[in-house]
Amino acid sequence: MKNSIEIKVRYAETDQMGIVYHANYLIWFDMCRTEFFRRIGIDYRELEENGVLFPVIDAGCRYMLAAKFDQDVVVTAKLVSVRGVRLKLEYEVTRGTETLALGHTEHAFVDKNLKPIKLRKYYPEIWDCLMKALTLE
Amino acid sequence: MKNSIEIKVRYAETDQMGIVYHANYLIWFDMCRTEFFRRIGIDYRELEENGVLFPVIDAGCRYMLAAKFDQDVVVTAKLVSVRGVRLKLEYEVTRGTETLALGHTEHAFVDKNLKPIKLRKYYPEIWDCLMKALTLE
Amino acid sequence: MKNSIEIKVRYAETDQMGIVYHANYLIWFDMCRTEFFRRIGIDYRELEENGVLFPVIDAGCRYMLAAKFDQDVVVTAKLVSVRGVRLKLEYEVTRGTETLALGHTEHAFVDKNLKPIKLRKYYPEIWDCLMKALTLE
Amino acid sequence: MKNSIEIKVRYAETDQMGIVYHANYLIWFDMCRTEFFRRIGIDYRELEENGVLFPVIDAGCRYMLAAKFDQDVVVTAKLVSVRGVRLKLEYEVTRGTETLALGHTEHAFVDKNLKPIKLRKYYPEIWDCLMKALTLE
Repeated sequence: MKNSIEIKVRYAETDQMGIVYHANYLIWFDMCRTEFFRRIGIDYRELEENGVLFPVIDAGCRYMLAAKFDQDVVVTAKLVSVRGVRLKLEYEVTRGTETLALGHTEHAFVDKNLKPIKLRKYYPEIWDCLMKALTLE
Repeated sequence: MKNSIEIKVRYAETDQMGIVYHANYLIWFDMCRTEFFRRIGIDYRELEENGVLFPVIDAGCRYMLAAKFDQDVVVTAKLVSVRGVRLKLEYEVTRGTETLALGHTEHAFVDKNLKPIKLRKYYPEIWDCLMKALTLE
Repeated sequence: MKNSIEIKVRYAETDQMGIVYHANYLIWFDMCRTEFFRRIGIDYRELEENGVLFPVIDAGCRYMLAAKFDQDVVVTAKLVSVRGVRLKLEYEVTRGTETLALGHTEHAFVDKNLKPIKLRKYYPEIWDCLMKALTLE
Repeated sequence: MKNSIEIKVRYAETDQMGIVYHANYLIWFDMCRTEFFRRIGIDYRELEENGVLFPVIDAGCRYMLAAKFDQDVVVTAKLVSVRGVRLKLEYEVTRGTETLALGHTEHAFVDKNLKPIKLRKYYPEIWDCLMKALTLE
């Protein structure tokens, strides 16, 4: 399953090259991920309040075309794998018909002390949401 | 009492105007504040771990000259007032002999639930550090 | 005249206090300002491309209540004065019926070399947009 | 050749998980890269002023241990390849004897219009600095 959000580029996100500073794409992925989770039935804010965190353990991005101030871009997230204590998402940033960037993040399932949690065992309803999202196109 | 820190401007801090994005000055004030507190005997990290927080309740900055990528700037903090449940600091950002910006922040003394704390009563040793810093030139 | 935008708080905007880091409010003001200008007929992106910049020369914010991750906040901008080579806006950040923060920014009218421009003389159509916005409630 | 810089974690770099927000590592890589270039004889600020830019075309980071507010971390950069119109660096973030993160960035050689430049041909002295850095341990 995929889910997209629209972002209007902020002035603060530009750098002196006149384009969006590259680290901001990871923030866009994060925003898109939160909405993806919401879409599949997981309220990430509540999840954290209940002591389950999904910290980033790996992130990457390939930049093809630059985004610029005040442009409208679309970020799309897709869940690509869920294993014992981690999951992986892939992202695409587009502007109209152009692909600006492709990226991914991997996340661990941990508690407030950043210790791994067996999500399937202790939070089966969250696990089910992820499983369902994996199988849907 | 005053305390200064040196900062080398990061590329990420610039915007498409080719200068440091204005909001970053508040981050520089914050860095300078942490070192100011350390200098007068208050480890702000420990303070928070012990449940005392100094959130910003007011901040301001006047921008005179722009800072640019890779320049070395100096930020100086000065404690100007401490009252019942709040304190105020003033800041100056300089580059060589030029003043780039002048600013201030005010902070409340609160606990982890953001409720006001009477610092003088419950954390007299912290209060004393602040009082001493006020009187020293 | 006033104009409002809606913002969903990003995870990246929080700090370890569990609330939005204070410097981000200036970024929200900036976003709101861009939309305010668009609303009154000024495309700030185009303006910069034509060599007219409105850098921030003064900014301030009073923080009353904290915004938190994933909350929906509304930021409202109002133009309060336009003089020879500068203008001033005021902002309010609200969440439902609560006011979270009040702020302001002042801006100079400059060219690409950051030299002051007499907007009224050289860009009368921009000046007129500002004048009209000042008089409208 | 390798080059390291020291960074004290800023409060602004933390998020509500109580750790450094992951996107900030890319900013640290950037800072480290600038110093690496300076060390091998390339002043990146001057380079950009002369119309040569090294935008990021790929970036990645694997996060092993979290950095926290006020901690001292060391970031080390190493140039691993230079080809026709691009170069690649690898980074390590450490705290004492612990490795917190490993990352990389790839950069294109472009002009102000983001068009590829043959560095070897048009900026042989820059090319030579890079070649020398590649061969040194």
